[in-house]
Amino acid sequence: MADLNEHTVTDAAVAQMANTPDPRLREIMESLTRHLHAFAREVKLTPTEWLAGIDFLTRVGQACTPYRQEFILLSDTLGLSRLVNVMDDRENRVGEATETSLLGPFYRENSPRFEYGQSIATRAKGPEMIMFGKVVDEAGNGVPNAIVEVWQTDAEGAYDLQANDPEVMDMRGQYRTDAEGRYAIRTLIPLGYSIPMDGPVGELVRKQQRHGFRPAHIHMLIGAEGYRELVTALYLGNDPNIDSDTVFGVSESLVVNLATGLNESPDPSVPSVRYDFQIAKRAAHDKSGRVGADPSKIAAE
Amino acid sequence: MADLNEHTVTDAAVAQMANTPDPRLREIMESLTRHLHAFAREVKLTPTEWLAGIDFLTRVGQACTPYRQEFILLSDTLGLSRLVNVMDDRENRVGEATETSLLGPFYRENSPRFEYGQSIATRAKGPEMIMFGKVVDEAGNGVPNAIVEVWQTDAEGAYDLQANDPEVMDMRGQYRTDAEGRYAIRTLIPLGYSIPMDGPVGELVRKQQRHGFRPAHIHMLIGAEGYRELVTALYLGNDPNIDSDTVFGVSESLVVNLATGLNESPDPSVPSVRYDFQIAKRAAHDKSGRVGADPSKIAAE
Repeated sequence: MADLNEHTVTDAAVAQMANTPDPRLREIMESLTRHLHAFAREVKLTPTEWLAGIDFLTRVGQACTPYRQEFILLSDTLGLSRLVNVMDDRENRVGEATETSLLGPFYRENSPRFEYGQSIATRAKGPEMIMFGKVVDEAGNGVPNAIVEVWQTDAEGAYDLQANDPEVMDMRGQYRTDAEGRYAIRTLIPLGYSIPMDGPVGELVRKQQRHGFRPAHIHMLIGAEGYRELVTALYLGNDPNIDSDTVFGVSESLVVNLATGLNESPDPSVPSVRYDFQIAKRAAHDKSGRVGADPSKIAAE
Repeated sequence: MADLNEHTVTDAAVAQMANTPDPRLREIMESLTRHLHAFAREVKLTPTEWLAGIDFLTRVGQACTPYRQEFILLSDTLGLSRLVNVMDDRENRVGEATETSLLGPFYRENSPRFEYGQSIATRAKGPEMIMFGKVVDEAGNGVPNAIVEVWQTDAEGAYDLQANDPEVMDMRGQYRTDAEGRYAIRTLIPLGYSIPMDGPVGELVRKQQRHGFRPAHIHMLIGAEGYRELVTALYLGNDPNIDSDTVFGVSESLVVNLATGLNESPDPSVPSVRYDFQIAKRAAHDKSGRVGADPSKIAAE
C-alpha cells in the first residue's frame, strides 16, 4: 500500500471510478474529481474552510422545497447555468434561431391557457404592456400552433411562487400561435427583482457585496412539433441593472424597449413590443432534453 | 453590454465577486468558479446533465439529518477529504507527530468518560481487543491528562448512530492519560463496513461499481492543552479491503495488527495492540480549528 499524498490521492480517486460502466458518467466524474482537487490544492483549502463548505452545501440542499430550488440559484449566481446554456446553444442552435436565456427557478408546468391578446394578470395589478409578434421558422415563415409559454414577476417584482399561497398560479400562461404563427400577450410591466436573499445563496451574495438584482424580464418557453424547444427571456432595456445581472442571463439580442403607438399592437395605446421568435428544426444530433426545472419535480418534499 | 460566451462568462462571474471584503473568501470563490467552469467546458456539460447534477446535490443535502452527513460522505468518496487532510498535515504537522486520518461522519461530542482499561462496549457484544500505549510529545515524553476520544463500529460493522435508537451512545468514549501519559482501551474488534448505501452517494458509488467498503478501523481524537488536536484512526492490517478504502483514509503508519501475549497489555490474553500517539505543540501559524464534524452541529434539523 502506497501512502497517498496531495497529488496521488487524485489518481487514486479516479482509479476507483475506472470501472464505471456508463462511459459518460465516468468521464464527468473523473473530470469533476480532477478539477475539484485542483481547486482545493490551488487555494490550500483548510479543514475549517472545508467544513464551512460542507455546512454551506448542506444548507443549500435543505433550503430546497417543491417551490424553491436553491442549488439552481447557486449555479446561476456562479455563472455556471449561463455557461451550460451558451455551450448548448453553440452545439445545438441552428441557423438564426433566437438566443436562449436561463430557465431560472420559477418555471412551472401546466400553467393556464390563454387566447390571443388575453392578459396573464388574473390577480396582480399594475401598469400594462403587450408583447406580440410571430413564431417563425428558419426561413422566416410563421409556425402555426406553436406553444408560447410565458412567466414573469408582477409589477412588484414577485413571482406567484413567492406569494403567500404558492398553489395559486398568476402571471404565467400558455398561448398557441394562429395560422400565421402570430401571438399576442397582454401582461404587466415586470419589475427587476432581487434573487431570494433569505437563504444560504443570498448570504453568500451579500458577503460578496453584489447587489443581487436581476433586470426586469419576461421568461418564454416556445415549442412546436419537430422544432427544438426554445427557452429564452426578454429583458427591458431601461432597467438600471441591465448590465450587471446577478445571474448573467442577459444577451444583447434579447433586450427590448417598450413603445406606445405601434400600429400592429392589439392595443397601440398600451406600451408594446414586437418580438419574433425564430425556432429551429430539431437537429439529428440534438441531445438536449427538456430543461424543465420545475422545482417541484426536483426537490424532494 | 458585451454578450457573454463560454469563456467571458467566467471572467464576468469572477468580476462580480471582486468587491468581496474578505480576501480569503474572494480567493476561494474565484478559484472555485474558475475550476467549476473549466470542468463544465472540459466535458461540455449539457443542460440535461446539469439538471441531473442539481437533482443529485439537492438529494445529498436533503439526506442530511442530525445523525447523517451525506455531503461529508460525498467529499470522502471523491477523495477530497483525504486531500484536505494531507495538505493540513503538511502545513501544520510538526516533527514526528502521528499521521492524521479522516474524522468521518460518525463523530459525536460529549461521549461518556471511561477509566484506564475499561470497555467502551456498554451494550454491543463480540470478540474483544485492547489498545494501549502512551500519548507522547515531540521528545517522546508522556503527556499526562491528555484526552483520548475513541469511536468505532461494533462487531457487526455498525455505529451507534446507525442503530435503531441513535440517541443511545455505545462503542465510543473518552479517556484521560495518567501521570506517565498512558492510556488503555478495552473494546470489541471492529468490523469493516460499507458506507451508507441507501442515499444518493451510495447510488453514485454503485453506479461506479465500487465495493463501498472501508477496512476495519478505530477512530481517535487526541487533545491536550497547548497541543495540536490529533484526528486519526488505526486500521486493522488483516482487513481484505485495507488497500482499497472507499474513502481513501488509510496510511501505512496507521495500520496495526493484533496479537495475544503482549506483556504490557492490561490483559495479555486478549488480542492487543500497543500504539503510541505523538502529538505536537500547537504552532503559532496553525490555523486549523476543531474539525468537529458532529453531524448534529452541521445539518439543520
